[in-house]
Amino acid sequence: MDKPFDLADQRDVLVQALEDNYFAQKRIHHITTKYLPSRAEVKAITDTLFELIYPGFFGRQDLAMDGLSGYLRGQLDALSDRVYRQVFRCFRTRSDDNPEVLEGQTRRVVLEFLESLPRIRDLLASDILAGYTGDPAARDTDEVIFSYPATRAITTYRLAHALWELQVPYMPRMMTEYAHSRTGIDIHPGARIGRGFFIDHGTGVVIGETAVIGDYCKLYQGVTLGAPSFPFDEQGQIVRNYKRHPTLEDDVIVYSNASILGDVTIGKGATIGGGVFLTRSVPPGCRVSMKAPELKYRNRRGRLDRGFVSDYQI
Amino acid sequence: MDKPFDLADQRDVLVQALEDNYFAQKRIHHITTKYLPSRAEVKAITDTLFELIYPGFFGRQDLAMDGLSGYLRGQLDALSDRVYRQVFRCFRTRSDDNPEVLEGQTRRVVLEFLESLPRIRDLLASDILAGYTGDPAARDTDEVIFSYPATRAITTYRLAHALWELQVPYMPRMMTEYAHSRTGIDIHPGARIGRGFFIDHGTGVVIGETAVIGDYCKLYQGVTLGAPSFPFDEQGQIVRNYKRHPTLEDDVIVYSNASILGDVTIGKGATIGGGVFLTRSVPPGCRVSMKAPELKYRNRRGRLDRGFVSDYQI
Amino acid sequence: MDKPFDLADQRDVLVQALEDNYFAQKRIHHITTKYLPSRAEVKAITDTLFELIYPGFFGRQDLAMDGLSGYLRGQLDALSDRVYRQVFRCFRTRSDDNPEVLEGQTRRVVLEFLESLPRIRDLLASDILAGYTGDPAARDTDEVIFSYPATRAITTYRLAHALWELQVPYMPRMMTEYAHSRTGIDIHPGARIGRGFFIDHGTGVVIGETAVIGDYCKLYQGVTLGAPSFPFDEQGQIVRNYKRHPTLEDDVIVYSNASILGDVTIGKGATIGGGVFLTRSVPPGCRVSMKAPELKYRNRRGRLDRGFVSDYQI
Repeated sequence: MDKPFDLADQRDVLVQALEDNYFAQKRIHHITTKYLPSRAEVKAITDTLFELIYPGFFGRQDLAMDGLSGYLRGQLDALSDRVYRQVFRCFRTRSDDNPEVLEGQTRRVVLEFLESLPRIRDLLASDILAGYTGDPAARDTDEVIFSYPATRAITTYRLAHALWELQVPYMPRMMTEYAHSRTGIDIHPGARIGRGFFIDHGTGVVIGETAVIGDYCKLYQGVTLGAPSFPFDEQGQIVRNYKRHPTLEDDVIVYSNASILGDVTIGKGATIGGGVFLTRSVPPGCRVSMKAPELKYRNRRGRLDRGFVSDYQI
Repeated sequence: MDKPFDLADQRDVLVQALEDNYFAQKRIHHITTKYLPSRAEVKAITDTLFELIYPGFFGRQDLAMDGLSGYLRGQLDALSDRVYRQVFRCFRTRSDDNPEVLEGQTRRVVLEFLESLPRIRDLLASDILAGYTGDPAARDTDEVIFSYPATRAITTYRLAHALWELQVPYMPRMMTEYAHSRTGIDIHPGARIGRGFFIDHGTGVVIGETAVIGDYCKLYQGVTLGAPSFPFDEQGQIVRNYKRHPTLEDDVIVYSNASILGDVTIGKGATIGGGVFLTRSVPPGCRVSMKAPELKYRNRRGRLDRGFVSDYQI
Repeated sequence: MDKPFDLADQRDVLVQALEDNYFAQKRIHHITTKYLPSRAEVKAITDTLFELIYPGFFGRQDLAMDGLSGYLRGQLDALSDRVYRQVFRCFRTRSDDNPEVLEGQTRRVVLEFLESLPRIRDLLASDILAGYTGDPAARDTDEVIFSYPATRAITTYRLAHALWELQVPYMPRMMTEYAHSRTGIDIHPGARIGRGFFIDHGTGVVIGETAVIGDYCKLYQGVTLGAPSFPFDEQGQIVRNYKRHPTLEDDVIVYSNASILGDVTIGKGATIGGGVFLTRSVPPGCRVSMKAPELKYRNRRGRLDRGFVSDYQI
């Protein structure tokens, strides 16, 4: 069993078959000198950004406020170089501009991105506080930061959104998909989300590209802010770049597994109940719930029990 | 392109901006000598516990029943030391007691935790058997152990719950969130779950902190055992530490994507159908299903087809 | 705090308790010389297969079409040996045949599997194109390949299904569970899926073992193609190996969080709306949606607002 397997004369046949297939199916290889951004590097950059955003929670713990600047200088030197290389690849893959133009563009983007970190950190401080004040199971904000999946998803989204605003291709989505993979929370980097945002539990949440969320909103697991379907469009080409996802005004709560589809507006302070399926706008302050979900109750003998009436009100 | 990016005179500006922001937003850094528990270590400890719980399935495979004690001695020596260090950090972060008191407390917790492993293993043996006997797609219990996500989620929960019972802060939730990230199954370490428990598929399952689940219960993907909403509470401070999640008595089955919310009781042997949204108690033996989900059927010309009646009975 | 924790005289007690428990609960250890397949190796093999399927997107980027054969020869030599070792373990764990018979069987399986890669690649090229043409948020097929979770889930499924067809035990499910863990998309390797298949967002999707999906079908997040429940079966033994999941004919779309349960047939070109719960067959071209989900709208004073009527049509 420990002798190595030998492909022998099958090896060349297999190699030739793969090579032929690479020629036949060009769309799914990327054998070119225009290197794509590296997935491993984008993940490593995201992890390093977490260390800068939440020092002491992620990465090195032996830090002190005195002498922090030496540590930060080293981190920023290394990080800026790595971000530069990946952003350059992103621009170059999508563009035919000459490298010098792209280098200047990349340089500006890297600086603007790093300059935005304190502003992003302000937003995240409001998100973490919202996570703590809104969840009876949270014991302190520390726990929210280092063990709530929403912290990973929202932090990654805010970083990716900054790169999205700077019109970097690929990398923002790579970052949010890294978070999606680890949390089950799928926030498109193009979405716009106000301060004090939080998501409890989170698995299954989808927030689409053109969704807009005001300040102090909260979502629960399984919530979709999605686009409606277009079964009658038979043009072949799908239309891109138009507002097709919901707008949530400030202070909106959407409970678990509710779906809101289309370019509708949920007014300030509205509450959408668990399991609600909604494709129209809702005025401010409105509370929407499923109408007495009709359930059948059968006893052990299979007989319907009419004594039960189910009602639910949020 | 391969010359390193140089932040030059921007570096000090960026460093200063971050330092200022750390002073402004203190809540989301943890720059202190009271180190938080290490996420990497907690994951590694969990992985080692899997090796002790399921020897031959996880970790080393070249084991024999003869001579196992030498292997176990080495594993326990290393593991107990690592658990000790993390549990100590957990207590120390949350407490102002002096280190010697915390050391004694930690020592007792580590021993009690390790002593509980055989009891936990008994429970898990009943869970694995339940997973096999309840799933037509399972070929043997081996497959259930090493490729079913519920095995990871439930095993991690049972280990974390033992630490929760010993009142260790942080670490239990860190462990279950590690499993949540890998499985999409979110079981709070505070939940109480009887023997012979299993979850099929599992993505999207949420079991809240005060949920109680009897023996031989089974859940499917997307099931929420959650807390109801409190939209009218405008006190600002959320109430913590009260029973707000369901109780499932023995032999209850909850099918996919059903939600049960609030401190309600699902009686022994009851069955909750797929997609049911329930906020009230259900007597023993009762089978609850959605009442004939009313669907619209349109043909190619968009006309409603009234010939179809949908019904479903579990 | 940095002195190591010492189990002292508790060590032997703990070791003995674990050993006793291994004897008592034999089902959940696998201490035998018939080694199970290695989870780490199966993951590494899957990753290498991604590099062969999508060269330039995954793994090494410094490839050129000229001189590719040298690279491929090395990859295939290493890969075939690793696949051989794991497939052999899979067969040996499940079978009592003598090792020489199993070696011959394994050799044939490895060659047939590697020969199938170009055919699998053809299917995947159609899947990636379907992913791009069906999603307004996709900017190009490159983005679909390296940042869409469905690419990971479907590619892994197609590779695992090839091994399933060759009747390799364990390994196909280990591969799809690796993808499930990273994407939240749970496709059983036994399912049969035609060309041009895609899943958007994807978290929570479950496709059961005996599901059959035609060409050019599309699913959204949270869709279950599952088996119905059997609460009345009290035989103790569950029935395995029968068709219990849906068949989707060509060109079927199933929107987010819909559930289709049982051995029913969704006809060619049919569309199943978001949130629909379906347990019966649907004719070709039919569009099924929830009938006007009845919602309650309450204003700030808690009064029902009857002015609102909700309707939805796909």
